[in-house]
Amino acid sequence: MSSTRQLFELAGADDRVRFSPYCWRIRLALAHKGLPVETPPWRFTDKEAIAASGQGKVPVLVDGERWISDSWTIAEYLEQQYPETPSLFGSAEGQALARFINQWTNDVLHPAIAGVILPEIFQILHEKDQDYFRHTRETAFGATLETLAEQQETALISLYQILKPLHHTLALQPYLAGEAPNFADHIVFGAFQWARLVSDSIKLPAEEPIGLWIERMLDAYDGLARKAPKAYED
Amino acid sequence: MSSTRQLFELAGADDRVRFSPYCWRIRLALAHKGLPVETPPWRFTDKEAIAASGQGKVPVLVDGERWISDSWTIAEYLEQQYPETPSLFGSAEGQALARFINQWTNDVLHPAIAGVILPEIFQILHEKDQDYFRHTRETAFGATLETLAEQQETALISLYQILKPLHHTLALQPYLAGEAPNFADHIVFGAFQWARLVSDSIKLPAEEPIGLWIERMLDAYDGLARKAPKAYED
Repeated sequence: MSSTRQLFELAGADDRVRFSPYCWRIRLALAHKGLPVETPPWRFTDKEAIAASGQGKVPVLVDGERWISDSWTIAEYLEQQYPETPSLFGSAEGQALARFINQWTNDVLHPAIAGVILPEIFQILHEKDQDYFRHTRETAFGATLETLAEQQETALISLYQILKPLHHTLALQPYLAGEAPNFADHIVFGAFQWARLVSDSIKLPAEEPIGLWIERMLDAYDGLARKAPKAYED
Repeated sequence: MSSTRQLFELAGADDRVRFSPYCWRIRLALAHKGLPVETPPWRFTDKEAIAASGQGKVPVLVDGERWISDSWTIAEYLEQQYPETPSLFGSAEGQALARFINQWTNDVLHPAIAGVILPEIFQILHEKDQDYFRHTRETAFGATLETLAEQQETALISLYQILKPLHHTLALQPYLAGEAPNFADHIVFGAFQWARLVSDSIKLPAEEPIGLWIERMLDAYDGLARKAPKAYED
């Protein structure tokens, strides 16, 4: 029996537009490990398609008989299940410290980016997802998408401010994990890939440390992230 | 010849009060490596005493003939010079990821704590340091120490907000570096040690993740940090 590996990925109205930052972490992690995968498109409201995972969000990885959800849990699963492939963490302390980067990304970086791009995400969603998205995001942010759109300039200033530690770190080394990328880089880069696939509002100078690192991450794994179709023409 | 190792440490009016967060990183790093050290007290205005280091700030480590400044540089020096002692980073990616924690601490955590405790630090300084401290800090913060004191409640709210990723990480593992502390823990704990030695304004619930981790760090290395005299009675 040929075991098919599948990663359910959030898609926009256009099947080819895959913009979830959490899904990108796993796409990059699978590429890092050289593990092929099929990536069926999924929408926020397709709860039944991933019911076997016991919850309602992507990424969901189906590996043979196993259904695994939550990007960090999937990364740990891949690390344990495929010990002969390149490591996502490198070492026990590498994994522990990546936890902090994971939390910083989820708690600080994602909300800061979302504050800028949520109204633009809404525009590129499949029609059936729009009500769900508007309701969940407006509740989380305590503001309508229209208000967020009006406040985009302020949101951009906050974002550039919170990027300071990332800027300073990448001024000293090519990747967060050092000389080569690992899951810590996948986590943080996923956020910028999310932003660039749905919006061109966030401008990071290409010759500065974060911009240079983004270019390196776009080139990594045979240009996997660079090849991903954007939701808009640029 | 007996090679004496010395760490110049910032002191308050009271010689025994050693409150610099950057100096604490190195005290803990030396303890981690089991390297004995003498710790002469130093004040902000004692520039001549450390002139041989080529700059004017502490920590300065004098190891035999070598003078080394900057806490990160000192940690790298110790790691290279004493490879047979317990590692401060564990691995190349452990060191690279600790860089991000170092930058987050310097760029985000320190300013947030300083916003709360600067006026209290001023009170416990040696008289000869007070003008220097007031001038440099008021310039950096764009506010007088008296204004900062009035805004302490707001500063506390900002601080608790920026602690989110630390809180969430330490809810999942006992130390930033995993099952045991390393230099990443020394870096972040140094900030809380700084705060607790000069002020009791920052209240972190002892039964929550950060409070529990602080207790573990106070106990580590034979209670080195817990034994340090505070600037005030509590």
